[in-house]
Amino acid sequence: MLDQIKEEVLKANKLLQSSGLVKLTWGNVSAKDPETGLIVIKPSGVKYEDMQVSDLVTLSLDGKIIEGHLKPSSDTATHLYLYNAFPELGGITHTHSLFATTLCQHGRELPCSGTTHADHFWGSVPLIRALNEEEVEEDYEKNTGKVIVEHFQNHKIKPLEIPAALLHFHAPFTWGRTAMESYKNAVALEACAEMAVRTINVEQLPVIPPHILQKHYQRKHGANAYYGQ
Amino acid sequence: MLDQIKEEVLKANKLLQSSGLVKLTWGNVSAKDPETGLIVIKPSGVKYEDMQVSDLVTLSLDGKIIEGHLKPSSDTATHLYLYNAFPELGGITHTHSLFATTLCQHGRELPCSGTTHADHFWGSVPLIRALNEEEVEEDYEKNTGKVIVEHFQNHKIKPLEIPAALLHFHAPFTWGRTAMESYKNAVALEACAEMAVRTINVEQLPVIPPHILQKHYQRKHGANAYYGQ
Amino acid sequence: MLDQIKEEVLKANKLLQSSGLVKLTWGNVSAKDPETGLIVIKPSGVKYEDMQVSDLVTLSLDGKIIEGHLKPSSDTATHLYLYNAFPELGGITHTHSLFATTLCQHGRELPCSGTTHADHFWGSVPLIRALNEEEVEEDYEKNTGKVIVEHFQNHKIKPLEIPAALLHFHAPFTWGRTAMESYKNAVALEACAEMAVRTINVEQLPVIPPHILQKHYQRKHGANAYYGQ
Amino acid sequence: MLDQIKEEVLKANKLLQSSGLVKLTWGNVSAKDPETGLIVIKPSGVKYEDMQVSDLVTLSLDGKIIEGHLKPSSDTATHLYLYNAFPELGGITHTHSLFATTLCQHGRELPCSGTTHADHFWGSVPLIRALNEEEVEEDYEKNTGKVIVEHFQNHKIKPLEIPAALLHFHAPFTWGRTAMESYKNAVALEACAEMAVRTINVEQLPVIPPHILQKHYQRKHGANAYYGQ
Repeated sequence: MLDQIKEEVLKANKLLQSSGLVKLTWGNVSAKDPETGLIVIKPSGVKYEDMQVSDLVTLSLDGKIIEGHLKPSSDTATHLYLYNAFPELGGITHTHSLFATTLCQHGRELPCSGTTHADHFWGSVPLIRALNEEEVEEDYEKNTGKVIVEHFQNHKIKPLEIPAALLHFHAPFTWGRTAMESYKNAVALEACAEMAVRTINVEQLPVIPPHILQKHYQRKHGANAYYGQ
Repeated sequence: MLDQIKEEVLKANKLLQSSGLVKLTWGNVSAKDPETGLIVIKPSGVKYEDMQVSDLVTLSLDGKIIEGHLKPSSDTATHLYLYNAFPELGGITHTHSLFATTLCQHGRELPCSGTTHADHFWGSVPLIRALNEEEVEEDYEKNTGKVIVEHFQNHKIKPLEIPAALLHFHAPFTWGRTAMESYKNAVALEACAEMAVRTINVEQLPVIPPHILQKHYQRKHGANAYYGQ
Repeated sequence: MLDQIKEEVLKANKLLQSSGLVKLTWGNVSAKDPETGLIVIKPSGVKYEDMQVSDLVTLSLDGKIIEGHLKPSSDTATHLYLYNAFPELGGITHTHSLFATTLCQHGRELPCSGTTHADHFWGSVPLIRALNEEEVEEDYEKNTGKVIVEHFQNHKIKPLEIPAALLHFHAPFTWGRTAMESYKNAVALEACAEMAVRTINVEQLPVIPPHILQKHYQRKHGANAYYGQ
Repeated sequence: MLDQIKEEVLKANKLLQSSGLVKLTWGNVSAKDPETGLIVIKPSGVKYEDMQVSDLVTLSLDGKIIEGHLKPSSDTATHLYLYNAFPELGGITHTHSLFATTLCQHGRELPCSGTTHADHFWGSVPLIRALNEEEVEEDYEKNTGKVIVEHFQNHKIKPLEIPAALLHFHAPFTWGRTAMESYKNAVALEACAEMAVRTINVEQLPVIPPHILQKHYQRKHGANAYYGQ
């Protein structure tokens, strides 16, 4: 079973790069084995194109390294906090995908503006408050998980119904029942964020003169069409 | 004949992904065989890269599955409604391409702002109203087709002259005489939507000081050119 | 010599697609042989990926087809008008590249805002007026060349100093001493148009709290760095 | 040692193109050998895809060509000035990457708006003033380095803490302890500039009617899910 989980974690991490969700090594995917409760996560600072199954790190839910010769991602404590608080999660993805991160930097939640969003998130994707100075100093990565969990609990949001969070001044986390589902939610979040950032900023778009519209449509589709660039 | 139609439907579905019009499995292409009136459509939830001719689903115009071992796309009822109402259609494409969908989310039609648009659409691409609560509950996908058809009939728009519609809060549909033509109209719609969304939002663009313009142009093109990064 | 010209025209046409300057078949490149004065141009409606040297069309400067089994691009009359008026041109490129075309649709010239522009164009790239109804009816493609030439002559612009024009409601043309140079100017024009369209639309960008800046910089670069996603 | 440096300079130059940071030949990477103090830089005007180790140019810190059959990049004097003023630099990258260059053209520094920035730059990336007429005439490329150095010295910025500069009306330079580090900083600068340029320009994003949100979420995730495009 863990072999299959590892293959999926490897594949999802590589998809982060090939899909354009991350640049350099700015992202990571993990999964939880439903039987053993073990966590498999990306190693720290390894290039996606070079990464192999044997590079992945396996940990227990309390953070002990069970298997692996490399350090786990520096974001591991955030992943572990989320898995511990939300047992229904089977996979977590963290990226700095540029449109979702733009929302984070501006401190904006992502409302549901259309069915692309509704297909994945049952309402607004929340903005999670920035950590205060003490939380940053004390245990930065663990507290990053903690403020996400607190937000979802305080607002009574079920994590599988809104499988994503936007961290103020930081970047998004997404999750799901599996690593691949968390990856797909990262794709969906980025697409919806892209549409939110790319709003239309003029009242009136320019309109072509009718005689040019006529000519161009008819030279391609009319009775005497001759068009072909 | 159906073999050729199937090859074209497969090709057009794969082009959705390779051209960047869809992410994950957010789109589908169908075609109608002009001789038999049978419809060939993408199967539900299959990855574009894995899809084969044998995965496609063949249906009659009233929705009976004639051939295929997989479920047809969940948008099939919309395609069928359009084929039944507009017999001149030979192919239909549905995507969530991001710029056209941004227009849908903002509830904006797409006016013709230039010849790129005029080459494909003989006037504005209309915005189709959102379904009301009853229409959604009763038969969502069929009613999606119905509101498109009603709009075109009420406004006396010929579907092959404006082969596209923007569904409020949802996404675009395009069509044509063939599957490939519907795909090309999806490309054209997205390009024109991209230009509409990317309007220019400042009155005055900055202007370089003349001595820097002079230097850069002359070091590359002047009598003593030495430029080469 | 014509063989070499043909190879270059083929290569430049294929680059239009691979560089992302055109979608579908929305663009064309031609060249003039400096010795014979013959023009080599893209055939009409052929896909870039399938195009071969033998598909190119060779014409005389007055538009007679000298060689080729296909129709020349429907924009041929524009190319010919430019070659006849500006004997210094050796290559012409026409695209509907999306950022330059956005400027055309909004009726905006492109001022020089930086050295990327200054390296290629010695001042603003002009906006050329739209054709009137008579000019469109009479000889659309030839008159498209005519209004470009009139603008350059009336404003005393040397075509090799500003090797580009933005046609109102239409799209850009670029040119150069060779086909490849006209292609490079199309790349440069699109890049500069992209920067013009993507202006910054807020006064104040958000600023991260200092304790988060400190933590993130130090966990990666400080004495006790441990970062690695 | 110099062989290894050359391999890295070659690789980083090729990455400029494959990562999309440069178009045509608009960028260059150099490195300094820490033992000999020799500089290895991209040759002038060579295509990235054709470039080989033997095309690279080796210079002494005072600009004498030590090895190489091609001309060094026309920006070499800027690189040399930076290496001489900041001995801690081991690599320098210059690009015209479009988002960072948009900031340059608008004369805007890049404040730190989030952790993506904080991971690479310990504060704002400064805007460097444009050269005046005399500085351009006298020794343009050398003076480009000089104004960068003056800005960092006057503002007491340590170059390895803020390894980037935005040149007004021109484009960015980045650097680091190695060529590869300077390349990575160019990637990070462009990503952060992209988020700065793509700010959100509306107060209220549109919100989908609740019955459509409900339908789309439930047809995919509810008890009777049937969705699959």
